Amino acid sequence: MASVLVINGPNLNQLGLREPGIYGRETLADLEALCIGAGESLGLSVECFQASGEGEIVDKIHAARGVHDGIVINAGAYTHTSIALLDALLSVELPTVEVHLSNIHQRESFRHQSYISKAATGVIIGLGSHGYVLALQALNYQFAQKSN
Amino acid sequence: MASVLVINGPNLNQLGLREPGIYGRETLADLEALCIGAGESLGLSVECFQASGEGEIVDKIHAARGVHDGIVINAGAYTHTSIALLDALLSVELPTVEVHLSNIHQRESFRHQSYISKAATGVIIGLGSHGYVLALQALNYQFAQKSN
Amino acid sequence: MASVLVINGPNLNQLGLREPGIYGRETLADLEALCIGAGESLGLSVECFQASGEGEIVDKIHAARGVHDGIVINAGAYTHTSIALLDALLSVELPTVEVHLSNIHQRESFRHQSYISKAATGVIIGLGSHGYVLALQALNYQFAQKSN
Amino acid sequence: MASVLVINGPNLNQLGLREPGIYGRETLADLEALCIGAGESLGLSVECFQASGEGEIVDKIHAARGVHDGIVINAGAYTHTSIALLDALLSVELPTVEVHLSNIHQRESFRHQSYISKAATGVIIGLGSHGYVLALQALNYQFAQKSN
Amino acid sequence: MASVLVINGPNLNQLGLREPGIYGRETLADLEALCIGAGESLGLSVECFQASGEGEIVDKIHAARGVHDGIVINAGAYTHTSIALLDALLSVELPTVEVHLSNIHQRESFRHQSYISKAATGVIIGLGSHGYVLALQALNYQFAQKSN
Amino acid sequence: MASVLVINGPNLNQLGLREPGIYGRETLADLEALCIGAGESLGLSVECFQASGEGEIVDKIHAARGVHDGIVINAGAYTHTSIALLDALLSVELPTVEVHLSNIHQRESFRHQSYISKAATGVIIGLGSHGYVLALQALNYQFAQKSN
Amino acid sequence: MASVLVINGPNLNQLGLREPGIYGRETLADLEALCIGAGESLGLSVECFQASGEGEIVDKIHAARGVHDGIVINAGAYTHTSIALLDALLSVELPTVEVHLSNIHQRESFRHQSYISKAATGVIIGLGSHGYVLALQALNYQFAQKSN
Amino acid sequence: MASVLVINGPNLNQLGLREPGIYGRETLADLEALCIGAGESLGLSVECFQASGEGEIVDKIHAARGVHDGIVINAGAYTHTSIALLDALLSVELPTVEVHLSNIHQRESFRHQSYISKAATGVIIGLGSHGYVLALQALNYQFAQKSN
Amino acid sequence: MASVLVINGPNLNQLGLREPGIYGRETLADLEALCIGAGESLGLSVECFQASGEGEIVDKIHAARGVHDGIVINAGAYTHTSIALLDALLSVELPTVEVHLSNIHQRESFRHQSYISKAATGVIIGLGSHGYVLALQALNYQFAQKSN
Amino acid sequence: MASVLVINGPNLNQLGLREPGIYGRETLADLEALCIGAGESLGLSVECFQASGEGEIVDKIHAARGVHDGIVINAGAYTHTSIALLDALLSVELPTVEVHLSNIHQRESFRHQSYISKAATGVIIGLGSHGYVLALQALNYQFAQKSN
Amino acid sequence: MASVLVINGPNLNQLGLREPGIYGRETLADLEALCIGAGESLGLSVECFQASGEGEIVDKIHAARGVHDGIVINAGAYTHTSIALLDALLSVELPTVEVHLSNIHQRESFRHQSYISKAATGVIIGLGSHGYVLALQALNYQFAQKSN
Amino acid sequence: MASVLVINGPNLNQLGLREPGIYGRETLADLEALCIGAGESLGLSVECFQASGEGEIVDKIHAARGVHDGIVINAGAYTHTSIALLDALLSVELPTVEVHLSNIHQRESFRHQSYISKAATGVIIGLGSHGYVLALQALNYQFAQKSN
Repeated sequence: MASVLVINGPNLNQLGLREPGIYGRETLADLEALCIGAGESLGLSVECFQASGEGEIVDKIHAARGVHDGIVINAGAYTHTSIALLDALLSVELPTVEVHLSNIHQRESFRHQSYISKAATGVIIGLGSHGYVLALQALNYQFAQKSN
Repeated sequence: MASVLVINGPNLNQLGLREPGIYGRETLADLEALCIGAGESLGLSVECFQASGEGEIVDKIHAARGVHDGIVINAGAYTHTSIALLDALLSVELPTVEVHLSNIHQRESFRHQSYISKAATGVIIGLGSHGYVLALQALNYQFAQKSN
Repeated sequence: MASVLVINGPNLNQLGLREPGIYGRETLADLEALCIGAGESLGLSVECFQASGEGEIVDKIHAARGVHDGIVINAGAYTHTSIALLDALLSVELPTVEVHLSNIHQRESFRHQSYISKAATGVIIGLGSHGYVLALQALNYQFAQKSN
Repeated sequence: MASVLVINGPNLNQLGLREPGIYGRETLADLEALCIGAGESLGLSVECFQASGEGEIVDKIHAARGVHDGIVINAGAYTHTSIALLDALLSVELPTVEVHLSNIHQRESFRHQSYISKAATGVIIGLGSHGYVLALQALNYQFAQKSN
Repeated sequence: MASVLVINGPNLNQLGLREPGIYGRETLADLEALCIGAGESLGLSVECFQASGEGEIVDKIHAARGVHDGIVINAGAYTHTSIALLDALLSVELPTVEVHLSNIHQRESFRHQSYISKAATGVIIGLGSHGYVLALQALNYQFAQKSN
Repeated sequence: MASVLVINGPNLNQLGLREPGIYGRETLADLEALCIGAGESLGLSVECFQASGEGEIVDKIHAARGVHDGIVINAGAYTHTSIALLDALLSVELPTVEVHLSNIHQRESFRHQSYISKAATGVIIGLGSHGYVLALQALNYQFAQKSN
Repeated sequence: MASVLVINGPNLNQLGLREPGIYGRETLADLEALCIGAGESLGLSVECFQASGEGEIVDKIHAARGVHDGIVINAGAYTHTSIALLDALLSVELPTVEVHLSNIHQRESFRHQSYISKAATGVIIGLGSHGYVLALQALNYQFAQKSN
Repeated sequence: MASVLVINGPNLNQLGLREPGIYGRETLADLEALCIGAGESLGLSVECFQASGEGEIVDKIHAARGVHDGIVINAGAYTHTSIALLDALLSVELPTVEVHLSNIHQRESFRHQSYISKAATGVIIGLGSHGYVLALQALNYQFAQKSN
Repeated sequence: MASVLVINGPNLNQLGLREPGIYGRETLADLEALCIGAGESLGLSVECFQASGEGEIVDKIHAARGVHDGIVINAGAYTHTSIALLDALLSVELPTVEVHLSNIHQRESFRHQSYISKAATGVIIGLGSHGYVLALQALNYQFAQKSN
Repeated sequence: MASVLVINGPNLNQLGLREPGIYGRETLADLEALCIGAGESLGLSVECFQASGEGEIVDKIHAARGVHDGIVINAGAYTHTSIALLDALLSVELPTVEVHLSNIHQRESFRHQSYISKAATGVIIGLGSHGYVLALQALNYQFAQKSN
Repeated sequence: MASVLVINGPNLNQLGLREPGIYGRETLADLEALCIGAGESLGLSVECFQASGEGEIVDKIHAARGVHDGIVINAGAYTHTSIALLDALLSVELPTVEVHLSNIHQRESFRHQSYISKAATGVIIGLGSHGYVLALQALNYQFAQKSN
Repeated sequence: MASVLVINGPNLNQLGLREPGIYGRETLADLEALCIGAGESLGLSVECFQASGEGEIVDKIHAARGVHDGIVINAGAYTHTSIALLDALLSVELPTVEVHLSNIHQRESFRHQSYISKAATGVIIGLGSHGYVLALQALNYQFAQKSN
């Protein structure tokens, strides 16, 4: 049974807390439950992780070596500023799908650049929490392709 | 039954023709069959369209108004240069998922910018032909959400 | 009787179709009728043309040589990307007035540059469909000046 | 009877003085007479103003509040450098048409940017003194539209 | 009694340690005592926090939700590089005053840009430790305005 | 008794005139009265000055030499374009606090740069008219520090 | 007998039509005849093609696969804007010589960049219609080298 | 007897007032006396003018037409920001020598660009008040050359 | 006996783990042993430290004040993004040699800039783990020079 | 009999020395013999020159005045950095063809710009040593055209 | 008797050779004679030097140490590209006046930057060969000032 | 016995001549003696070379082929401007260590870029003349590694 690490970066633990009438009531717990459930449907073991610190996420990525078969990552603001995360992903050489809840290309220009994309196999943007489900499907598909 | 238009832009009709030993043998016909099959599984009607001309794609997008419920588009090279396609997508106001076979952020810098992303709901990059299947799933999910 | 070619570029055939409650109900047909009517008042023969393809507009400009005495052009999105249209206008050497319905300088920065302006005699921006009427008046005035 | 303020900025009082054999003999007085005459034809009251000082033009724009119904402005060199004029126009909230005698997009690149365009309703470029007449027509048309 | 969180970022714990003969002897402890004293004078509860880690500051900002009524923040070097702090401030939606001891606009150009300013209500720069006192006054004034 | 010159640049005399229902009813006279009152509380003599012309403000700054002990300046649009004001402030060598009513870093990018900041001791942004009161306090604090 | 496709892009069909007294009387027909004649001298089969549409040229390049042994291309204005043509040339993998009649590096700066050059084997600029003859010689020389 | 107008821009009336122990005691009056004296030696009539306002200097340049035979101008800070002064100099078409007391290329980068240089015959930088004397000699030499 | 702190930043703990057949088998432990051994040869006390977190490295640099006589630092990815590390190094004022294993100037352009270099005494790039040995020699040489 | 000077710049004397198994065995001597032979076939006198120094090449270009009828130049690295060579070519006013062995537009971006192109009649890139032969043919064709 | 070295860079030995009917007949010999004559009038010993090689000019500047009291330099094209000349001038620390015959700010933009200006005391531009005479006067004036 | 060529570029022959009280008394001769002595200690044959001319250094690098086993180069100002030196180093394919006496990243921005770094194995910056010794050690270490 393949295993996937789902990483959420800074501020994603605030989902659902800010004006829920406007931004929706889905919390990080809901999002992680969605991922685990989707994993179960696909026959994937899913571990969820969230941290605010760049170094903690770097360490978590390193720890995935030999433990997980793929990574789904929404690095939040670090997407645009962290070469350290890029290097961590390059060092573990796992298939990785980058996810963003909103379409970052329709936001401020400093959110258009992604260091994560330079290491990611694939990128899924703007499809909300369903994007994580698609990312898990994409990894699952790649695992299946490789095992053929 | 919801209907989706799948658009492929210039040079995508050359898939599978160039050194198949290296680039793979999947042709545009294979890709379109994959989309239609995925649509059938999802209960979506899928129409496939490919053209080399910017104007022809603009016209096809216009023609989708009132006919289709969503668009999946891989605009090929026009992704990076065509404001006309951006405006066409803005004018028809249909949910749109942009797809790229390869990870354009790992290619030349002039392929990093996308005018299509400014109009697209979501973007799926680097996941090969399976990305089209995910795009159809994403639209299907959105249709389901809206009808709730 | 002088003759003017009025060219509308991509997406201008969608005028009036998108949320008419918001964007107004004036269609391309209305706009072209307005131009023809204004031409009649001024004693100008007006031919209207719209196309989505860059190459078709290039060809139409070429065909104006020896047939029309001036050009009114709203090249839509090609305004910002088409050196081919610039070269076509330079090659036929007809007095040309560039028109834009909205004030492009108050929109996204990629709409601030115009290749058409490098060949146009004059530019009229932001005055809606009435801008076409003013463009015809401007050409008429220039024809009158030259014939003095 | 609607009233329009026509503003000319620095160096426009030198029209007709520099090598008239080459640049033409039309002076600022001629230009202002043209505007007043065109106003009479249209049923518009026209006041003309010219100044070399940025601050004087700012003050004149402020003074238009409650006195005039629209502004025609050729800010000369201040077009490209004056945020103060932009703010003055924004503060009085009158319909404004920006005019330039020559096609500024065919001159040095520092003349391609206009702060005035960020506040103007419309822009008319490259049509000589006749551009002022068209600007008055444009304002007149807008007054008529609004009063409907 | 309103409550304010005063945040100091990396290296501000080194105040007073570096060549005190030149840079002054005021330490972080002095600065925090100044803030608490000023808070007492104003009738504000003041909590002081300093950390070197971007993630720790993000977490502290999140923790201010429902606990504090406003934030005073000198993010030190993270001012110029941290989109994560910007997003944290945006997520808690508290009135925030950004402070810098020195005039960052008279230092190296990479210190001229502030991500914090994109979320801050106000910015106070170059007024030394007294700037923190002014920031507390500013928040106090805003609390008073709102409660009117 | 120390003396401070409060300078307001172009368009600040329009405060309160533009749609007071939206932008507030506070006028320049109110703002100047606020400054004079705050000065009285602090034991500062305050002179207020407003002008639309860059040269007039330059002259007023020169005239402050030997007359005033500090300057509070909101240069309005000249903040972003006037090297002449920067040089005037550098020439009189008085402690200067730059003030802006709104947070200029959340407006158009051409409002992000300030020539005034290159000469100012401190900068206070985004705190409305209360920012002027804080600026006077800041100068008062500096006068007290220096006389110790 | 090797075969070469000679492609001319937009506006090259206007050669000889614009002020022949100044620009020369050589038409596209003359240029194509020159190429065919040069081909005959070299023992090359030459097919000439001209189109105004980007998509049509893309299609023509695709059609060269398996039909021609090399391409000579003057893409006109598309040289500077068309990634689609670049991709088409990359997809067919034929030896390609890019030609320009005039020295594009002595014209406007937007004509200095060529997407075609990124795919072309060689580039010949500024040598008029004789440049096409040299391009055919260059291809002929390469065919001879390869067959050794 | 040829006549020269010597123009000094904003802040040059502050020469000699700022820390004379450091910056020297030469005032604007001294500088103007130097110019008049040098003019007498050369047989030139010299008129000196200084103003802080951009518009006043524009007006003075216009007034030189038909009165003076050449201009020496140190536009101070307007050197770097004023297109209006550039246009004024272009309009009067008099031989003009631009002068700067200090070497502006060794100061901040925003002082490296000069709009005045685009209209000036010659430029003399960094040679202090003696640069004005050299400028008068240069004009005198040119008058002599022309009258030969 | 002088003391040196050797700092390794994020991802350097992954040395030797990634495809050792290609990238070599040297681990961080090997590298640190090399440094300690080289220190012993030189008569230097060497402490080694590695962390993934920017804040932890900032804290470690602060803690070096009064404990170590010099710093050798390979900040990994933080080299290119961390102003906080730059400020930490500036605050402790210790002789510092920056080291990079590979030649960063032959990698992606975002790896060409170093904030560390703005504070470092010296920089040693591209010489592998031997670069650390040279850095220790350089510090040792400087300690010897200073004690003369 | 017309005469042509063939200039090769720095490092071209190293042709054939670097890993001939990979880069080919053709040396500068071979290249120069090729040029002389081609000249003989065309009836052109060909002089070959190579130097590493910018100044020596400048001098050689000057010396061509009155001696040669045209120049073929591959300035090597000076192509991208030498304004002195540009000025030398402009000063002698001889027909000049610039040659590059490899396609410089497919190499590092600093090799994309050519100062030589600003003076050259024509440019031939990427066609190896055969490009020199084509350049001689081009000059020969131009000599023939001119003598008609 | 003070001594001045007059340096002319590449291509200045071509003065007077290129189309003398248009560009004038003054040669480098004439220019050098003018400088020596002006030196005699001023009581200055003048040595003239011209070279095409950057290294030769560097060497000549070094050789001026202890021999000459000042330098007049027109570095020709090296003005814009040579940091080596800048460093040579900085190393000898002699008063230096940079001269250009034409107004480089009215030529191509790559001629607007001068490395020489970063080391020169003064700069004289656009005044033809008379600019050299003025430069000698300027140095003479500075020698006189210093000896006071 | 391995052999190393030590190259010093323009102006390095001026070491020790400029204000020795400030810049130190170490001359180029001292520096070269240091290198030769260090070579002796390491068992390396060291040849020293200095030149002011770019072409002479290019030639010297070429001459190192087959004579030397490695290069130490401080190209002085050519570091930042010479692609010719880069190409020369690439052509001889010898291990190369770039050295700079001062930390070029703390000087003017035009000294931050190095073309030499694109060809160098390693770079040693800011460690004074001792940096040359370290460079020789680095080459010696590499020779030892390779011979294992």
